[in-house]
Amino acid sequence: MTQSLEVVSLEPTPDQWRWSFGGGEPLLTVAPGTVVELTTEDCYAGKVRGVDDLPSVVCQFPYLNPVTGPIAVEGAEPGDTLAVHLVDIAPARDWAVSSTFPHFGALTTTHSTAMLHEPLEELVWLYEIDRERGTCLFRPRRGGPEVELPLDPMHGTIGVAPASGEVFASITPGAHGGNMDTPEMRAGTTAYFGVNVPGGQLSIGDGHCRQGEGEVCGTAVESAMRTVVVVDLVKGGGPAWPRLETDEFLMSTGSVRPLEDAYRVSQHDLVTWAAELTGWDRLDALQLVSQAGLAPAGNVVDTNYTMVAKLAKRYLPGATAADGVHERLRATAAAYLAQR
Amino acid sequence: MTQSLEVVSLEPTPDQWRWSFGGGEPLLTVAPGTVVELTTEDCYAGKVRGVDDLPSVVCQFPYLNPVTGPIAVEGAEPGDTLAVHLVDIAPARDWAVSSTFPHFGALTTTHSTAMLHEPLEELVWLYEIDRERGTCLFRPRRGGPEVELPLDPMHGTIGVAPASGEVFASITPGAHGGNMDTPEMRAGTTAYFGVNVPGGQLSIGDGHCRQGEGEVCGTAVESAMRTVVVVDLVKGGGPAWPRLETDEFLMSTGSVRPLEDAYRVSQHDLVTWAAELTGWDRLDALQLVSQAGLAPAGNVVDTNYTMVAKLAKRYLPGATAADGVHERLRATAAAYLAQR
Amino acid sequence: MTQSLEVVSLEPTPDQWRWSFGGGEPLLTVAPGTVVELTTEDCYAGKVRGVDDLPSVVCQFPYLNPVTGPIAVEGAEPGDTLAVHLVDIAPARDWAVSSTFPHFGALTTTHSTAMLHEPLEELVWLYEIDRERGTCLFRPRRGGPEVELPLDPMHGTIGVAPASGEVFASITPGAHGGNMDTPEMRAGTTAYFGVNVPGGQLSIGDGHCRQGEGEVCGTAVESAMRTVVVVDLVKGGGPAWPRLETDEFLMSTGSVRPLEDAYRVSQHDLVTWAAELTGWDRLDALQLVSQAGLAPAGNVVDTNYTMVAKLAKRYLPGATAADGVHERLRATAAAYLAQR
Amino acid sequence: MTQSLEVVSLEPTPDQWRWSFGGGEPLLTVAPGTVVELTTEDCYAGKVRGVDDLPSVVCQFPYLNPVTGPIAVEGAEPGDTLAVHLVDIAPARDWAVSSTFPHFGALTTTHSTAMLHEPLEELVWLYEIDRERGTCLFRPRRGGPEVELPLDPMHGTIGVAPASGEVFASITPGAHGGNMDTPEMRAGTTAYFGVNVPGGQLSIGDGHCRQGEGEVCGTAVESAMRTVVVVDLVKGGGPAWPRLETDEFLMSTGSVRPLEDAYRVSQHDLVTWAAELTGWDRLDALQLVSQAGLAPAGNVVDTNYTMVAKLAKRYLPGATAADGVHERLRATAAAYLAQR
Repeated sequence: MTQSLEVVSLEPTPDQWRWSFGGGEPLLTVAPGTVVELTTEDCYAGKVRGVDDLPSVVCQFPYLNPVTGPIAVEGAEPGDTLAVHLVDIAPARDWAVSSTFPHFGALTTTHSTAMLHEPLEELVWLYEIDRERGTCLFRPRRGGPEVELPLDPMHGTIGVAPASGEVFASITPGAHGGNMDTPEMRAGTTAYFGVNVPGGQLSIGDGHCRQGEGEVCGTAVESAMRTVVVVDLVKGGGPAWPRLETDEFLMSTGSVRPLEDAYRVSQHDLVTWAAELTGWDRLDALQLVSQAGLAPAGNVVDTNYTMVAKLAKRYLPGATAADGVHERLRATAAAYLAQR
Repeated sequence: MTQSLEVVSLEPTPDQWRWSFGGGEPLLTVAPGTVVELTTEDCYAGKVRGVDDLPSVVCQFPYLNPVTGPIAVEGAEPGDTLAVHLVDIAPARDWAVSSTFPHFGALTTTHSTAMLHEPLEELVWLYEIDRERGTCLFRPRRGGPEVELPLDPMHGTIGVAPASGEVFASITPGAHGGNMDTPEMRAGTTAYFGVNVPGGQLSIGDGHCRQGEGEVCGTAVESAMRTVVVVDLVKGGGPAWPRLETDEFLMSTGSVRPLEDAYRVSQHDLVTWAAELTGWDRLDALQLVSQAGLAPAGNVVDTNYTMVAKLAKRYLPGATAADGVHERLRATAAAYLAQR
Repeated sequence: MTQSLEVVSLEPTPDQWRWSFGGGEPLLTVAPGTVVELTTEDCYAGKVRGVDDLPSVVCQFPYLNPVTGPIAVEGAEPGDTLAVHLVDIAPARDWAVSSTFPHFGALTTTHSTAMLHEPLEELVWLYEIDRERGTCLFRPRRGGPEVELPLDPMHGTIGVAPASGEVFASITPGAHGGNMDTPEMRAGTTAYFGVNVPGGQLSIGDGHCRQGEGEVCGTAVESAMRTVVVVDLVKGGGPAWPRLETDEFLMSTGSVRPLEDAYRVSQHDLVTWAAELTGWDRLDALQLVSQAGLAPAGNVVDTNYTMVAKLAKRYLPGATAADGVHERLRATAAAYLAQR
Repeated sequence: MTQSLEVVSLEPTPDQWRWSFGGGEPLLTVAPGTVVELTTEDCYAGKVRGVDDLPSVVCQFPYLNPVTGPIAVEGAEPGDTLAVHLVDIAPARDWAVSSTFPHFGALTTTHSTAMLHEPLEELVWLYEIDRERGTCLFRPRRGGPEVELPLDPMHGTIGVAPASGEVFASITPGAHGGNMDTPEMRAGTTAYFGVNVPGGQLSIGDGHCRQGEGEVCGTAVESAMRTVVVVDLVKGGGPAWPRLETDEFLMSTGSVRPLEDAYRVSQHDLVTWAAELTGWDRLDALQLVSQAGLAPAGNVVDTNYTMVAKLAKRYLPGATAADGVHERLRATAAAYLAQR
């Protein structure tokens, strides 16, 4: 396999960043199976560089959450499955930032959960990133102990062009993926998206050095990233909602409001998927998922909320998802890493 | 400590079962620190014993989800913290059951999410419990592979008498605890409840051999249990919502609707708690929880939905929750188990 | 009819007020068809008497929202329909009050929609009531025009004992009625409740000189009331959720969270009811309600939210609800008012 | 004024219909104050013409809900207020249709409220429209009485191009307007939209002969329309969410999920608006709206739910909204109708 490894690079300049999913021409077109080495800027478009850079001052709405892409995949047609394996996600700088943001987050009044309170105070936290030791350092702004947290890099935003000609801001998660903000989107994961337009049009951004489930303050440990993905195509079988696979788990996602509907969407998809993969009746799959499934929050702050439904593959005897593409992409990733 | 170990037994007869939290006389009164060996019946009141025992036929509403208790704790006054350490939860039989139930569950129309659909089919699953091997066996009703799942026993229902003289059915979770249905309520966990009435009035029931997060079909692997708890009291500091502690984690819960409000309640409590324990400003605690917190669903099927907010204690330097009672109860549990 | 008019009086002293639905002995027992002249205190238990009486200071939680009752109705058995016709609701004083209340209302963080904001400012408004002219005078606290509003007296809280031995605080609305806070509960309306316990146990309180739909700040123009009701009984036919009837409309209510579920419950009940009364298939009734139904909010501030589903009786040809008891009670009311 | 009355016509052919808000070139550009006589097709794109035309068969997703437009208004810049006065809305045919639709509506499982039920039966109702008598005739499909309902024509869908380059399907309501499905959008109403892009880009469609609040089955009495609007511009003052004005009422809208957030958005906007117009402090405006405001549902079926917050202008002494444009447009409408 290594002899045929196609590797391309995608390092967009700021004028090439995109701010939405859907519309626009691809920035890159690749054959299925291509390894793409790409760079992403952070959700602040790199403008918050210290604790005095308040996002509401230095950022210019709506120029938030730039994404790298779209990457068109040759041969991808509506109804197909676009598979993206995350090979490596490496912080590009030795610092990262997080912040509150006026009227954004789960524990504050927002544009949608409109109330008469003044916004919470806007604060920025600067994290030191130690790539050698694999840590990021939390420094409280107003005293108290510092905490060293393990790096667990992931991408908050990844997805394809929506159906029906819709164009969504890159901060919106949905059936097309987008800003799902789940920590499960780490290296080692393969994400599956249903293709809605020719080429699929994959974009990726919003790197996080790590993120708690729900992203309760509204932002993670935000960082520019140097990321490697393998992009592949499975003909047909495009899922209605993004799905994830790791060596150990299958996962379905749902990104709607209220949060119980995001739970319903993700669990419904996982139950249906489990039934298809095993031959179980859907009520039998419902029963198994009820006893063995996990349900972590993705985000509870974005324009849609995201829940993840997660099931260990060892509880799905004989099941092979998406024609086994995850295994193949793992091999591609290993070959790439061996020769890098 | 072992010389002073107080151990009492509580094995209610069916006419002693209770069906609600609040009201009624205690079934047992104990001194703080007492080990209680108790039995609980399953949520079907033991009436579903095979796949032909449809709950809607053999159970008599509202006689569902019996609880054992209340157990009054001497000296417990409103505002105090009732601490319950789960020492051991052992399935009492070599079988357990689960089922769908008409108009109950997350993927079906219900009493509250009222729709015009007919109910989903009512089905019962019988699990074989192998206590030696620590497994329960899932047998699909309509073909396909069987799956052996690890036992992970827990109690779906545990709580105290509500405030303000309210009486809630045992199937309702809330600020008093109750039917939270979180898999975190396993042996090794200490649960903290705010005391609302003299004695606190602890009740416990709804044992599960294991349960997925969210309990999507509405029921877990339901089983009668032989359970051992240590009941203790911390003067003052009663939390507004139930909290949990294990050797590794602190957890807050929220049980309301919609699910994002359950998320908000649990995260708000965890943020506030973390700030108190470390001396951080609340916004600093918000930031840390945003990056390091977990947010698994408890239940998304009961009269209130439950979310759990979970933080590793290693990220809270120097923090000691509830006067360190968890550590003391771990020691009591060890002493008990050593002499059992 | 006038010769048989049974009229009784119920003027509870403060020590006789109740604070919940369910539990406790009846304060009065009446035969079906009895006219009851009763008094109710306001939701502040009469303690807020001027703009300097902050509720959080002068009121003592949970002693809020006293109700008058319970009134047991002879012969009422579980499954029956308790019918309450509101004959007259008259403000008892020449002033009334409203207020914000810390962490209560739709546009503020609350106990359930927990956020990190400080509470909104607590303010009290004193209204002058002019019973002759039928007005209440709004005086802004911080300048700007005063507004004279028409009196439209109603009861925020009315209901029966809940099922299954539950006891709910009087501020909670639900299937038993309770604190639904809908402006439709005015004189001329007949309310129907499903009986859950012998006698039904009707209680009433929380008079409002008027109220907007949703009660957005959390309180209405709160007033002690002198109220006249006729209490009657229809054997069987107890509705799952409270229903209302006026000369012009049938109404169903739903009181749950989230608000779309309250909408679903109320519309589902109205569709089902319309089908029963006309002989339409349920999908035909759904179609008619879709085109001719109204859907005003009741409250969006209490522990459950209330939606009302409302259909003009002229769109239900030949329909007679609840054995025509509304017409009979209108006649009783007219006879009472004629002789008063 | 009549001498200067500019009247233009817009009758798009099917290939000119649009299916989204945002993107694309204007179909017409007009000066502020222009009267536009336009035609709209129904939400089924005219393909459902009898009870045997099942929408899921004859319609081709996503070609649903065509809109007429966009109409660019000369001089409209982001931040301005686009005012649209509805002069006349007349059914174009002597029949109209309604239907259930698989997995769409408030009382059925949907794409978002995902459940395991089969869809409800798909049924079509054909209404006879009598324009002379002003009625539409409901014929139940399965027996029972027919009902004559009054015509109350309105447009379910009206709005402008969204901000930030987003493109939303015409079935989605939001801050840009769109498919709000409120019966308040009838002749005599002026709608205000915040302009997001040069020209504003107004589109209109989805005529309803009448509609219940909430549109519970998912569709109204759907009809092609011959509609007359006056399109005008107020520099600055663009509202965050669509607002409405009639001779009697001011209204704010909110279109998000869950429904309580739509309520919050609409009430928050109305409170803020009332404060601005009267000089009241926002808490005083909150108090007045709490007692005098109305809160009918718009839709509880679309991709966002819509609530309307409604306040009689007589309770806002001295207030003039949007520079009095509603009064001026009423005069323009009268002049147009006089000369038609």
